[in-house]
Amino acid sequence: MVAQLSDEEVNAAVSGLAGWELRDEKLYRKFEFTDFVEAFAFMNGVALLAERANHHPEWFNVYRTVEIWLTTHDAGGISSKDVELATEINSRHN
Amino acid sequence: MVAQLSDEEVNAAVSGLAGWELRDEKLYRKFEFTDFVEAFAFMNGVALLAERANHHPEWFNVYRTVEIWLTTHDAGGISSKDVELATEINSRHN
Repeated sequence: MVAQLSDEEVNAAVSGLAGWELRDEKLYRKFEFTDFVEAFAFMNGVALLAERANHHPEWFNVYRTVEIWLTTHDAGGISSKDVELATEINSRHN
Repeated sequence: MVAQLSDEEVNAAVSGLAGWELRDEKLYRKFEFTDFVEAFAFMNGVALLAERANHHPEWFNVYRTVEIWLTTHDAGGISSKDVELATEINSRHN
């Protein structure tokens, strides 16, 4: 089982993840797109990354905005899985 | 511009839409699937219906659960567009 990161580890990870912040004890980022087509295309990409990692986001979409929260329920908080998924998402989105 | 439905019209519509209820002055339904693959396949279908109608949901997904809220911002509340989209979604999901 993957372990929860310490506060120090979380803070170090967040400072290295452009656009992400700590919110509700989860990794959080809000993405804005041109329209729904672009927003949902992005969501399709994230869905594939998440399924491949067997680690899935909590996310909310309305029109051209997508909000993502990452946490690891089995670990009781943020784990390396969340940092890895956020990193992958960022690598595909400026 | 599409008009906001009256309370009576909303109540009549909700009573005819299996699984939907009125929540936060929006049409709301929660869907449960077997896993993320099924949940996100459903979301892809809804995305196409929404884009075709040029009327988009507010929705939240975590793993196998999808929650949808429908309202019409231009109308200041629930309109026939929301009832139509909810009806289409239901026609593709038991």
